Amino acid sequence: MEENFVIEGRNAVIEAFRSGKTIDKLFILDGCQDGPMSTIRREAKKAGSIVKYVDKERLDQMSETGKHQGVIAYAAAYTYAEVDDILENAKQKGEDPFIFILDGIEDPHNLGAIIRTANQVGAHGVIIPKNRAVGLTAVVARTSAGALNYTPVAKVTNVKRTMEDLKKEGIWFVCADMDGTVMYDLNLKGPIGLVIGNEGEGVSRLVKENCDMTAAIPMKGDIDSLNASVAAGVLAYEILRQRM
Amino acid sequence: MEENFVIEGRNAVIEAFRSGKTIDKLFILDGCQDGPMSTIRREAKKAGSIVKYVDKERLDQMSETGKHQGVIAYAAAYTYAEVDDILENAKQKGEDPFIFILDGIEDPHNLGAIIRTANQVGAHGVIIPKNRAVGLTAVVARTSAGALNYTPVAKVTNVKRTMEDLKKEGIWFVCADMDGTVMYDLNLKGPIGLVIGNEGEGVSRLVKENCDMTAAIPMKGDIDSLNASVAAGVLAYEILRQRM
Repeated sequence: MEENFVIEGRNAVIEAFRSGKTIDKLFILDGCQDGPMSTIRREAKKAGSIVKYVDKERLDQMSETGKHQGVIAYAAAYTYAEVDDILENAKQKGEDPFIFILDGIEDPHNLGAIIRTANQVGAHGVIIPKNRAVGLTAVVARTSAGALNYTPVAKVTNVKRTMEDLKKEGIWFVCADMDGTVMYDLNLKGPIGLVIGNEGEGVSRLVKENCDMTAAIPMKGDIDSLNASVAAGVLAYEILRQRM
Repeated sequence: MEENFVIEGRNAVIEAFRSGKTIDKLFILDGCQDGPMSTIRREAKKAGSIVKYVDKERLDQMSETGKHQGVIAYAAAYTYAEVDDILENAKQKGEDPFIFILDGIEDPHNLGAIIRTANQVGAHGVIIPKNRAVGLTAVVARTSAGALNYTPVAKVTNVKRTMEDLKKEGIWFVCADMDGTVMYDLNLKGPIGLVIGNEGEGVSRLVKENCDMTAAIPMKGDIDSLNASVAAGVLAYEILRQRM
């Protein structure tokens, strides 16, 4: 499964080169000579990428995110990982699998931030559904701050069925929900799948029924919930804390 | 200090009414009859707000966020709190002060998500700088999911000086930085100010020098950092965990 893939912004482009991603073509703001841009030009030369110098207007037109910072790269089509790649990733590191399952994240900023968090807590991969969810767009790549180059993302047709398959591999699932047990009181060690629901609706009923545990983040406030990427971060770090 | 204040989206508007905010004028999509919209109309009648029914095109034109969900409200100008209001808030609840200091957050989505987190961890207020930072825009209000109606936000000219004043009130400051002590090993109880830096640059040198502790979030990944609102959430919840 593949998608065309545009990378915008200096850090994102440098990260893409460093992680060994194939950059086919690079558009750079003409006359831009600072340090990060020299790094990008050096990496492009090393990698044999085609470099075009263009004016700001052209870059603005090409930009999907509106934040190109003077550089836009066209990468070889992004290849989604398979769920097996994620398990293999854990195996190679000799660690219990730690997987994020995103049950319908719609906002690309949230998806990017969550992939970034998944990378930082040492998760082995992220699973997203094919339907009713955002895919790996340029905004996601940029918001992930390079994490998309390291953390495999698999796209599945049926989240519930994928969870059933993963259960056979010994993985336990915990989903975030206000009605659950306070997260500090749960045992979140061992092979684990962290399920994060949709921004508005939360975790869907079928997926929730398939979870072994429901974890509640303490809420002392006046409103309903946290931002989805913040909630994912808080729960993921509780898992990491228990594992450390 | 005041700003004009537009509130967009159903939940944000309902929250604004419920928190007792004065809504001067309300624009509702003509023909929209569902449950949340009935709630909004009922609240508007109770509050005596002027209601105008308009078509989608008009709402799209008026919208600052692009996500009005059929309703845009004009609230009485938002009033920033004073730092003293935040201390008073803690005093009235009989709790040690817990304050967020945001040293230059630029992205309105991050600011909104952080105010939302501040509300949920039971913080007594948020302090933002007057310069080089985003203020309380419609996007911030919407992303805060109503938290802006409950959690006071103060705007200060000089963050460092404000911290010095707060130190005299017995508040300790902890800032997030990779070079710090792992957060689990710090004592984060008692009156505390949590300092979160700018998305790209982190905490500025002067502010950092004024902090009593530097807390590092464990990073097991391949990239540099977390999204600013995720980092704020993870650290804030570690403070809450230690306080519980």
